[in-house]
Amino acid sequence: MQLHPSETHSLPHLVVVGGGFGGIELIKALRKAPYRITLIDRNNYHTFQPLLYQVASGGLGADAIGYPFRLIFRNQSNFRFLHASVERIEPENRLIHTSEGLLPYDELVLATGSTTNYFGNAAIEQNAMPLKSIPQALNLRSDLLEEMEQASRSNDEDRRRSHLCFVVVGGGPTGVETAGALAEFRSNVLPHDYPELNKLEMRVVLVEASARLLNGMSAKASERALAYLQKMGVEVMLNTAVKAYSKPELLFSNGEGLSTHTLIWAAGVKGELIKGLPEESTKSSRFQVDAFHRVLGLQHVFAIGDAAGMYSEDAPKGHPMVAPVAVQQGRNLALNLFAALKGKPAQPFRYRDKGSMATVGRNKAVVDLPGFSFGGLFAWLVWMFLHLMLLVGFRNRVVVFVDWMWSYFTYERALRLIVRPYNPSEGEGR
Amino acid sequence: MQLHPSETHSLPHLVVVGGGFGGIELIKALRKAPYRITLIDRNNYHTFQPLLYQVASGGLGADAIGYPFRLIFRNQSNFRFLHASVERIEPENRLIHTSEGLLPYDELVLATGSTTNYFGNAAIEQNAMPLKSIPQALNLRSDLLEEMEQASRSNDEDRRRSHLCFVVVGGGPTGVETAGALAEFRSNVLPHDYPELNKLEMRVVLVEASARLLNGMSAKASERALAYLQKMGVEVMLNTAVKAYSKPELLFSNGEGLSTHTLIWAAGVKGELIKGLPEESTKSSRFQVDAFHRVLGLQHVFAIGDAAGMYSEDAPKGHPMVAPVAVQQGRNLALNLFAALKGKPAQPFRYRDKGSMATVGRNKAVVDLPGFSFGGLFAWLVWMFLHLMLLVGFRNRVVVFVDWMWSYFTYERALRLIVRPYNPSEGEGR
Repeated sequence: MQLHPSETHSLPHLVVVGGGFGGIELIKALRKAPYRITLIDRNNYHTFQPLLYQVASGGLGADAIGYPFRLIFRNQSNFRFLHASVERIEPENRLIHTSEGLLPYDELVLATGSTTNYFGNAAIEQNAMPLKSIPQALNLRSDLLEEMEQASRSNDEDRRRSHLCFVVVGGGPTGVETAGALAEFRSNVLPHDYPELNKLEMRVVLVEASARLLNGMSAKASERALAYLQKMGVEVMLNTAVKAYSKPELLFSNGEGLSTHTLIWAAGVKGELIKGLPEESTKSSRFQVDAFHRVLGLQHVFAIGDAAGMYSEDAPKGHPMVAPVAVQQGRNLALNLFAALKGKPAQPFRYRDKGSMATVGRNKAVVDLPGFSFGGLFAWLVWMFLHLMLLVGFRNRVVVFVDWMWSYFTYERALRLIVRPYNPSEGEGR
Repeated sequence: MQLHPSETHSLPHLVVVGGGFGGIELIKALRKAPYRITLIDRNNYHTFQPLLYQVASGGLGADAIGYPFRLIFRNQSNFRFLHASVERIEPENRLIHTSEGLLPYDELVLATGSTTNYFGNAAIEQNAMPLKSIPQALNLRSDLLEEMEQASRSNDEDRRRSHLCFVVVGGGPTGVETAGALAEFRSNVLPHDYPELNKLEMRVVLVEASARLLNGMSAKASERALAYLQKMGVEVMLNTAVKAYSKPELLFSNGEGLSTHTLIWAAGVKGELIKGLPEESTKSSRFQVDAFHRVLGLQHVFAIGDAAGMYSEDAPKGHPMVAPVAVQQGRNLALNLFAALKGKPAQPFRYRDKGSMATVGRNKAVVDLPGFSFGGLFAWLVWMFLHLMLLVGFRNRVVVFVDWMWSYFTYERALRLIVRPYNPSEGEGR
């Protein structure tokens, strides 16, 4: 089946695969461009990934960090949405094979983002919990709460301790933020809401393979984050990797082990690739692109964001896989497409690093600005303000603000429903 | 395994099965009672069922109408929660068999509520979508939105019309409210967000077996609701039942048929019973109780709410299965338990009908007060105010208020994420 064949094809067809930060920035910037634009995504919504850990830890609802594409672009007349997943690309015929049929393109932008990297360990992939999508975050939330319930009805101390041991792998922002949120749950929720449980039986362990946390940030920020986490009672294990996990037994590279039912995997990501491209188009699990976002070895195919590896002498590993790079690349590609239409030369991409930040807990965050690093309450306020501003959709900003204020004053996490998928053969969602 | 055996058993153990309106009212009223209270529920949260249809239609988030039991009762020292489902009761030994082990009781209150009644039609049970729980509402939301996406990529008019035909069965409050919400989606969302679709191809059909809508309310209210729905473009079929459904072909009792992928079943409920009770303890799918909520043929077992059939000459079919009955019964049973402790006589239950109401759409609702019926904007404001007040949890009131205001001023439904369960073998929640 060929999709949309009945439309008139007067304008060239630009197809964007993936509606993350890069994809939506690009499409917004092309609002007045003479293209028919189709966004393909397997989800019908944009995910604000930086706050996924708050959904998992019961601070925010899924609807607060996801926003429907059709609503984002409701007033953009050159926009169409196709809810489908891409199976492969046939660049020689400018065709995309999707789960819903074939889609021809004139220009193609791959903004597929990244996926969890288990570094080839299949046993860990099956048992660890990733945190890259809304269904994963909701699943993790239900699992965490179910561990608490299981612990609360167990009379066996060893089993109870195993249910109450939460291990986070990966000391990047997601790992640090998740460990911090779990430590706050232990301090603020457990003593009130689980009278059967002893707070001292709950452990939060953060494991990082390298010598410090927040590797992408300054040494100062790493030290601060470590100090915050330790003060909050998180056991931080540096220079340690996970070797094997046979639920509930977890084995570390240093020979130590522990018993846990919850292994949260925030140890790495890799570009989300698509089949059907020549060999030189991909490298190190990313689409290999030149400074103009063109995928090597192909015509009319671009890549931006996490999935794009713009390898150069300055950046031999490509740019960091973070939202600001994706946003800036989306904007630059849009400018270059406009330039091409006017016969003007394209501008090579240059990344402007405006700084980075991570939050650890209540009143505790770290911010790196070029040449300047700070932490504490002010960093935390900056973090909150910027994330509110970056959220897509006014409704979501208000709801997130309300939930943050509520949590701040009550020390509560109210979004603690254990919701499992509805299955008709099981009755009322049991 | 026997649960909680390590606790000291100085106080009698009161077990409440089900944390709906009746169960939580009862437990709250027993805050100072000399009992150890255990609430058993298969969910870890209370569901505000009257607003489930708004979750299904994208107006509210699941977290706005569900509230964790542990949070509701965090300051009630005689309260414990057991997350489990009840398998059967052994009244002769005062034991409850749960999915998590055995639980002994001294006094038992069955507040199990009601479940969807398909009147024995297994084919409809497999293919129709009920609306009695949060997982069901979320599933229905995703299904509705997926039908829209499927229609938007189809070039075949018949298929498209079939995807865009939404049939609601049952003209009670849930059916009326759901049909109204779908009609508003067609008017306010479809024209903006689905430029591929023609609004006129979308149908909303409401089917009711009896001669009028809102059978539990006044004739005036029924007429008003019918007029509102027709004005909003809902096709109301009275005196019509569903005979068969072989997806997508739906057959009515009058011989007519239509093609639809979405059959929403709001046609009836029945009490949710538990195994292991003598025959006289149940009647017409409810626990048979006397005027003091005692289940017939048993000692120390009570039933309240939808699941309790208090059959009498005044109410040969028992009380209506609505929240106010459950709340009043919970309160009366609590008073009688206090009276028994003091050696005072119990008071028979008497239902005070304070009126009923249903909302149809924006500025459109119907309210029946004793001897007085009204509709329109004022009824709608009364409906909103009372539902906000009845919601459990201050956080949820604020979030619902924000979402209602947002919808009111923007005519939008922002909560439109198609979220399917996470499955590790499928990657990032595809």
